[in-house]
Amino acid sequence: MPLTGKNTIASEVSAEGAEVFYSIDPRSKTTGDLPFHNATRNEVDRAVVAAVAAFQEIRGYPSSKIADFLTEVAAQIETLGDDLLHTADRETGLGLPRLTGERARTTGQIRAFANLLREGAYLRAIINTEQPGQPAIKQMQFPVGPVAVFAASNFPFAFAVAGGDSASALAAGCPIVVKAHPGHPATSELFAGAINAAVAAKGFPAGTFSLLQGNGIDVGQWLVAHDGIEAVGFTGSLRGGRAIYDAASRRPRPIPVYAEMGSVNPVVITQAALAKRSEEIADGLVASVTMGTGQFCTNPGLILLEDSEATRDFIASVSEKMDAAPTGILLNEAIAAGLQSAVSETAAHAQIEVLAGAEAIADSDFFCYRNTVMQTTAAAIRADDRLQVEHFGPVTLFALCADINDLRATIDALEGNLTSTVHAEEAELESIGDLLHQLREKAGRVIWNGFPTGVAVVHAMQHGGPYPATTAPGTTSVGMNAIYRFMRPIAFQNVPDALLPRALQDANPLGILRLVDDVYTDGAI
Amino acid sequence: MPLTGKNTIASEVSAEGAEVFYSIDPRSKTTGDLPFHNATRNEVDRAVVAAVAAFQEIRGYPSSKIADFLTEVAAQIETLGDDLLHTADRETGLGLPRLTGERARTTGQIRAFANLLREGAYLRAIINTEQPGQPAIKQMQFPVGPVAVFAASNFPFAFAVAGGDSASALAAGCPIVVKAHPGHPATSELFAGAINAAVAAKGFPAGTFSLLQGNGIDVGQWLVAHDGIEAVGFTGSLRGGRAIYDAASRRPRPIPVYAEMGSVNPVVITQAALAKRSEEIADGLVASVTMGTGQFCTNPGLILLEDSEATRDFIASVSEKMDAAPTGILLNEAIAAGLQSAVSETAAHAQIEVLAGAEAIADSDFFCYRNTVMQTTAAAIRADDRLQVEHFGPVTLFALCADINDLRATIDALEGNLTSTVHAEEAELESIGDLLHQLREKAGRVIWNGFPTGVAVVHAMQHGGPYPATTAPGTTSVGMNAIYRFMRPIAFQNVPDALLPRALQDANPLGILRLVDDVYTDGAI
Repeated sequence: MPLTGKNTIASEVSAEGAEVFYSIDPRSKTTGDLPFHNATRNEVDRAVVAAVAAFQEIRGYPSSKIADFLTEVAAQIETLGDDLLHTADRETGLGLPRLTGERARTTGQIRAFANLLREGAYLRAIINTEQPGQPAIKQMQFPVGPVAVFAASNFPFAFAVAGGDSASALAAGCPIVVKAHPGHPATSELFAGAINAAVAAKGFPAGTFSLLQGNGIDVGQWLVAHDGIEAVGFTGSLRGGRAIYDAASRRPRPIPVYAEMGSVNPVVITQAALAKRSEEIADGLVASVTMGTGQFCTNPGLILLEDSEATRDFIASVSEKMDAAPTGILLNEAIAAGLQSAVSETAAHAQIEVLAGAEAIADSDFFCYRNTVMQTTAAAIRADDRLQVEHFGPVTLFALCADINDLRATIDALEGNLTSTVHAEEAELESIGDLLHQLREKAGRVIWNGFPTGVAVVHAMQHGGPYPATTAPGTTSVGMNAIYRFMRPIAFQNVPDALLPRALQDANPLGILRLVDDVYTDGAI
Repeated sequence: MPLTGKNTIASEVSAEGAEVFYSIDPRSKTTGDLPFHNATRNEVDRAVVAAVAAFQEIRGYPSSKIADFLTEVAAQIETLGDDLLHTADRETGLGLPRLTGERARTTGQIRAFANLLREGAYLRAIINTEQPGQPAIKQMQFPVGPVAVFAASNFPFAFAVAGGDSASALAAGCPIVVKAHPGHPATSELFAGAINAAVAAKGFPAGTFSLLQGNGIDVGQWLVAHDGIEAVGFTGSLRGGRAIYDAASRRPRPIPVYAEMGSVNPVVITQAALAKRSEEIADGLVASVTMGTGQFCTNPGLILLEDSEATRDFIASVSEKMDAAPTGILLNEAIAAGLQSAVSETAAHAQIEVLAGAEAIADSDFFCYRNTVMQTTAAAIRADDRLQVEHFGPVTLFALCADINDLRATIDALEGNLTSTVHAEEAELESIGDLLHQLREKAGRVIWNGFPTGVAVVHAMQHGGPYPATTAPGTTSVGMNAIYRFMRPIAFQNVPDALLPRALQDANPLGILRLVDDVYTDGAI
């Protein structure tokens, strides 16, 4: 099916507005031919109204029916074939190997949610049977209603139209209205086609899914302000996420915003680790910083070390390797401009020394920025929050600590992050514990002797963290628990078995694990 | 120990400020002798700083140590003896039987949290073992840090200084700074003494608990705005809760607010139920509306019925019984004034007919308001949101529906509520299902053939609901799951066993239920 450049509202294409924008190939900075139509306020309204209507049906669906739908979405994405990969590569410059892997991750996590639904314990069924003076109370998780999803630029598959937010919201039983990222509108339209095909194949209501295009802030603001939206999933910048959070908080009826907004992902490297694995750590760090041209929210952007000759040698080595590493392609002009602006501001700071890069490449055919290494002191980090700003690209900042107390005071002064990392040796296990737990308070995931890039899509994953990493540190946007952002518990008091969802019926017809009178069991009552 | 009228900051009494207020006996409207000191901004700061310091220690405590502390808190509350009951009765007029029951509920829920901690599965340990190409990821729940708790007026024990918010936050491992309700400052000080005694007995850091007195809005605003506070628990009015929510959302670093703000708790009664149990339902309804002088967030404030002769008879009967029921004592002057203002405004509405009450009793010795019944049409409810306002007192509003479609359209137009209730007959089970699930979308708890007042403190309880009932419909403020408002997941990647909390160690030394490679097990790895 040829691309239309239009929005998709409840399975119908729509282009009411006159404002258009174009896809740009970051490898050549050339503009595509197809105009993409910014959604109008009326189109936003139509999409949400359709989602509200769809929810009236979907909310009654059993988990198994939603699981079948998700499985079909994954299959339909695969049916898009190489066209999807090539389209996304043209729009993002991420390359076919990466995109092939990301596609597998995307369909994999959709199928993982389908499996979660079929297994059933995710409903968190809790039952207290009737006792003298106490009614029977039975609760489980239900979908919250229509969800607005804001797609990210840096993962055109895994955090976009059919990415983790969409998969978890659909798995929860919520219709979704997706605001596509303007960096990859054609890719977004392909995904819309796949989801709509699954909607049709499984007989879901058309309003289950809508896609809104837009290269400004209006579409997102209209969407979040719409009374029919019950929750928001967002992946992107701190500025964008905070604007969405503020809009949702100011509504007459506020709604939760689950915004994952990136972070500097502090890495602590002990002297013992340097003594033993300096070269290996340097190689790993450079690979992690430059992977995907540094355009990961888990990019290691702040490295804390005690000052020493070994540390200076290590930093010099990293700087050389960064300088020698190939210049990567940035996703789009906005990211290139934002990176240049952020690095320039940091580099101009009196306490910052530039060791590599920190300059744009003016005559490049593709969007890019030089791999950059900067250095400062731990005291400077503590004295100025601006040195904790994320540089979204192949950039890292070393902070030298005078001693362990300086290091620990600096960790205490860190803002919230998605991850924190320690490189240390087995011999340090006894002494490092406190520091590890201190780092824990600043992040959603703590990594030992590894690097933060690469987020395993497993049940135990926590991809979140204190603000400004996210607006909701109790939740995750990766892994199975992402579903709970879009569900809420409802309890039934003395409601007859015949009126209860099967998950709460006495016979436990689904055979799921339930907490019955404070004991976990998959038996009947 | 004699009462001081002072704040308690990290176990020390403090009265820096000159502003004072007094306890008032609602039975006699007489003012007490002891001045209570509004906390100053500096005192708020000291309390939070102490809480932050305390958290550095507490965050490393095993669940068992916190469980022992909670058990001690419960014992210390019991040690307060009858003095607690008499003091609270003087400040609230709730009466000794009710207060005796509420005390048992309060100590009971504190002990229930202790049991939850000892059992251990609440940590939600999830483990994915290392696989080819995938690191070991292990996550569990951790405390978020210092929590601000706003005590309610209507439950001086169960939703106040040592109530559900405090118990769940302490159980999570969070220090608490409690803003006492100005309606019962002496009661609050007694609870502070009990908690401080437990802090001392169990060697917890003094900053684990602070109590701030205050009869204005400043103390609360300072508290919520303080950067050391990580989350807020609030029980009270919509206006108060929204103000706290807004203040927290506007912070440079926003934090979650778990505000439970009351609701009208719609009740649907079918014609079949009326035909069979009219008298019984009328008696139950009147008891539920007048219980505690109607000062419950679960008070049934909106009754939806299809219009019929039986319905008119039923409403007349309820009105008579309400008129005949004794006039109850209201908690304080602010509640009496607020109730009068809210009912007057509703009664003045063109579509409202007053059937009983709707007037103050000018010459009463105690704070009170006449038991009130009003009537309107379902169409009027749909046309004007103001008819969904909560009247916090012995007041209920009947809305007559033309037919089932009118009823269903009205349910769709309802705002969020803590509860919704259906009275129907077994013969209607097949036809009532859709309506029940429609009501489900509007509430956190659905009640069958009962009344919403009376909230069982059991694991399956859900005391929450969509805004404006709460600001966080995915959470509960009653029952064991209340603890998750004050915890967040943290994942550990490839971290050596020796550095992990015991709940995540391979051998599973706590023997708790964990999700290991997607299978629930209490075994070792």
